[in-house]
Amino acid sequence: MKLYTYAGAPNPRRVHLYLAEKGLEIPCEKVDIMARANREPAFLEKVNRLGGIPVLELDNGSHLAESVAICRYLEVLHPEPPLFGTTAEEVGRIEMWSRRIELNLMRPVGMVWLHGSPFTKAVMPNQIAEVAEQSRGQARDFQRFLDRALAEHDYIAGNEFTIADILALTTIDFAAGLVELPIDPERESLVAWHERVSARPSAKEHPAVSLG
Amino acid sequence: MKLYTYAGAPNPRRVHLYLAEKGLEIPCEKVDIMARANREPAFLEKVNRLGGIPVLELDNGSHLAESVAICRYLEVLHPEPPLFGTTAEEVGRIEMWSRRIELNLMRPVGMVWLHGSPFTKAVMPNQIAEVAEQSRGQARDFQRFLDRALAEHDYIAGNEFTIADILALTTIDFAAGLVELPIDPERESLVAWHERVSARPSAKEHPAVSLG
Repeated sequence: MKLYTYAGAPNPRRVHLYLAEKGLEIPCEKVDIMARANREPAFLEKVNRLGGIPVLELDNGSHLAESVAICRYLEVLHPEPPLFGTTAEEVGRIEMWSRRIELNLMRPVGMVWLHGSPFTKAVMPNQIAEVAEQSRGQARDFQRFLDRALAEHDYIAGNEFTIADILALTTIDFAAGLVELPIDPERESLVAWHERVSARPSAKEHPAVSLG
Repeated sequence: MKLYTYAGAPNPRRVHLYLAEKGLEIPCEKVDIMARANREPAFLEKVNRLGGIPVLELDNGSHLAESVAICRYLEVLHPEPPLFGTTAEEVGRIEMWSRRIELNLMRPVGMVWLHGSPFTKAVMPNQIAEVAEQSRGQARDFQRFLDRALAEHDYIAGNEFTIADILALTTIDFAAGLVELPIDPERESLVAWHERVSARPSAKEHPAVSLG
């Protein structure tokens, strides 16, 4: 097994946090996304036709792309400690929160990155500033929603740390570090959650990359 | 158990297709999204603070939102026939394809709906036509990618029908029916897949809604 990755970037970081939480180690091959190595023909043909990382190369030679797909694959092989839940209700609730993070936070933050960042302008010449602004507002609205939820439970999907916390942490650090969308200090429960998960050994070992 | 739903709309339709494929029945309560019943204070407070449907009300009174979260909950209770895979590799591959559909197809189709449809103009006064156009291009690019993959396997995630087919079918029918983004007839493998999955009893019983 081998993980194609770029440590610190938001999507690969999810897998590195997951591995650290599970106490797993996998050999890694760095793909220099800043030099667009993930868009080279050899990578597209052999590893991931869509060009994204992380990608897990399995021992049978096949490739598994998408951060959460890699984590789910590993979860079947290494179920303890469970990060996707065990009972039907846990499994459903963790998936609900994971999707909320993806759809209501990662999506707008990604739109700010694509349409509002000088770093992406070279690959996204038709940036639309208004999209970045609308998306900033959506991300802030979701921070408020998340803050209210975190006043009721310590972690994103309940009272245990799960994959939903990994998705939220990587997205929030991405937003703060790369598109100037830090957590509003008024969101006290969200700030306290962020301190709580950032203090975990997994997060300290695998910090977010900064372009600053 | 009770399902808050609006038959035929893209996200609720996923759950109805899933239930039909599993041979399950759940009492339903219609939420008239066309009359914005899902934005009423009582719905937001008691059922889903984010206002989306479908939502599954569990017997303990709690609520599970998000189409795929509801399906995963039911999958734990009713594992046969498996629609999320069984082995680690199946589970990973089905999740990879499900995410590809969500991120590379549902996301741009949703943007066309929000920014390019007269039906959404009332709730989205700041529509940006250029976003709709860029998103149309992204959806067409992904159709090409999907077509190439479906030349290699009969279903989205391999040679079995899975949740990834449900996500792809509901998204493609949404795109064709509501935002004038039908499958390009040149994408012959994708057209053949669409005929194959549309011929299943689940799809015939639960057609997509049309606004036409």
